[in-house]
Amino acid sequence: MVGAMASDAMHAIDAGGYRVIVGAGLRQELGVHVAAAARAHRYALITDDQVAQHHAETALASLARHGRTSVHVMRAGEAHKTRETWATLTDELLEAGCGRDTTIVALGGGVVGDVAGFVAATFMRGVPVVQVPTSLLAMIDASVGGKTGVDTEAGKNLVGAFHPPAVVLVDVEFVRTLPVAHRRAGLAEAIKHGVIMDEEYLSRVETLAPDVIAGDASATLELVARSVEIKASVVRADPREQGLRRILNFGHTLGHALEHASGYELLHGEAVAIGMVLEARLAERIGVAAPGTAQMIERVVRSSALPVVRPAALTAAAILAATRSDKKARGGAVAYALPSRIGAMAGAERDWGIEVGDAAVLEVLT
Amino acid sequence: MVGAMASDAMHAIDAGGYRVIVGAGLRQELGVHVAAAARAHRYALITDDQVAQHHAETALASLARHGRTSVHVMRAGEAHKTRETWATLTDELLEAGCGRDTTIVALGGGVVGDVAGFVAATFMRGVPVVQVPTSLLAMIDASVGGKTGVDTEAGKNLVGAFHPPAVVLVDVEFVRTLPVAHRRAGLAEAIKHGVIMDEEYLSRVETLAPDVIAGDASATLELVARSVEIKASVVRADPREQGLRRILNFGHTLGHALEHASGYELLHGEAVAIGMVLEARLAERIGVAAPGTAQMIERVVRSSALPVVRPAALTAAAILAATRSDKKARGGAVAYALPSRIGAMAGAERDWGIEVGDAAVLEVLT
Repeated sequence: MVGAMASDAMHAIDAGGYRVIVGAGLRQELGVHVAAAARAHRYALITDDQVAQHHAETALASLARHGRTSVHVMRAGEAHKTRETWATLTDELLEAGCGRDTTIVALGGGVVGDVAGFVAATFMRGVPVVQVPTSLLAMIDASVGGKTGVDTEAGKNLVGAFHPPAVVLVDVEFVRTLPVAHRRAGLAEAIKHGVIMDEEYLSRVETLAPDVIAGDASATLELVARSVEIKASVVRADPREQGLRRILNFGHTLGHALEHASGYELLHGEAVAIGMVLEARLAERIGVAAPGTAQMIERVVRSSALPVVRPAALTAAAILAATRSDKKARGGAVAYALPSRIGAMAGAERDWGIEVGDAAVLEVLT
Repeated sequence: MVGAMASDAMHAIDAGGYRVIVGAGLRQELGVHVAAAARAHRYALITDDQVAQHHAETALASLARHGRTSVHVMRAGEAHKTRETWATLTDELLEAGCGRDTTIVALGGGVVGDVAGFVAATFMRGVPVVQVPTSLLAMIDASVGGKTGVDTEAGKNLVGAFHPPAVVLVDVEFVRTLPVAHRRAGLAEAIKHGVIMDEEYLSRVETLAPDVIAGDASATLELVARSVEIKASVVRADPREQGLRRILNFGHTLGHALEHASGYELLHGEAVAIGMVLEARLAERIGVAAPGTAQMIERVVRSSALPVVRPAALTAAAILAATRSDKKARGGAVAYALPSRIGAMAGAERDWGIEVGDAAVLEVLT
């Protein structure tokens, strides 16, 4: 546990052209932060019907002190991360009289951030967006990096744009209104950050996990700040995912496949947790990772009370098939981002993507 | 008329990060040029059902020599520049197995360029697009500058993105298959380029107009090359339309309003021709432009056999109302891009946008 001083502190992290501000209670001064980063004639607050119940009123009151503000509510959940929702929100903004001189504020989890970010990327060829993540997963991962988009029938995130936010405002106190399962799921990306870049941090995640799951603000602040530092350092080095940034895909090739094969019954963080354990085993099996890497990851995943084995209902063949439709498949082969040991990734000489044959993948899946 | 040498020559113009290649007969080597600028695993040719009749076969044959190529045909016309067409084309590409490693080739007029460009901007968060304009208007104007997008019920180009092409390939021989009215309409933007930046070029447009309207390739080559040079110099200076680039809006505030009020009965170039004459008169009336500016513009517009007065069926009030929904309206007021004389624009100190009261606009409309 860190003390009260640290919990009151604000961290400002450079993500390359914009800042991620992490603190406790930022939502009370939302309008001040938004206006400082992206002052506009009009503000459009986009959120979902679940987040709105807890947080829309405070956010609206704060924004309205800085300019005319409209509120636009989408239905919660990945099932609504669609072109239809994007079009409806766009039409609502036009109807509300929003023009080019509008800043969009995305208040919610990863789905809201992705959809509202894509509305901003395409509204009159692009207006600023401020990301205000309310889920632990979005704080740690989704809100940083400028990826926006929606799903189609054919798969996740197949339509979208890179549209970096004007600023990301992380109020760690939002985690108090999250279900425990969602706090746990958020830890998966923190574990990933430790594995890909910082062995010491991975141990720290193991220590902090119980307090984060319990909703402790100062433990959450420490975790989010360090995770954002790691993610931001990667994004700064490769904003358009043309090289290094691929290391952030660790756990995600099999993770996305599991998520898809489960019909999105698995939370993203749960699927990534299983994906990391499986991909680390894959890395050991093909001689890329040092022995013991998978075991250490499995231990920390267990400490966060996240799953380590695939649901029995999902066959190995179904998961393998789902990897093939992933965006990361290039020219037919599936490339994995794999660790060489805890804290370091392999494959720098191959653009951080290691092609693995189906036989080896099937072996770790069965 | 310029001689055979000039007509065979290729011009390569720097548009800031990409080149516009202007020549006669380029379509025969389309694949070579596309692969040189944006080699990919897959090529997706997007065109419309009118252009496809004349030009799809040659383009496909040339592209197919460089990689697997799929062809995607939208219905022709502004009425189909919609989110629905964009979504259908995107789904077709996914179904055809296109991944991130795809280059989209946009073969057609401004509508195809805008829609296919927007598909490219948003397909898996952005893949390269090569613009191959087939209309004179698109050669001179739409294909250069990276603007992409679609219309909504609320207005034109309200949804879109800046997505600069990998290269623009202009084969002036495409004008041979255009209706005469479309060649004339293309001249409107050339006239605009003269007004905003080059008095000598405006005279040259007057001289070249009859040959361009007759479909002469060398006159068209000279016109397109100089117009693209002017447009590219403006786009290089201001790629995201945050300042100087607004001068390209000359004639377009009233032009778009006329186009909209006419229910798109007027061709874009016809509406812009009338818009330029009216806006030049407006500029004289409010003391911004030197006397005689509007008269000179009117003379060149007439030499291109383009209209100079608004259709009687459109009331001044309807046109004025239509200016208010324009994207260029900021904070409620409508700003015009106006000349100070032939070859120079006014308002540098006001970001090239001059706010004009409704009374003055109504006077020139009536």
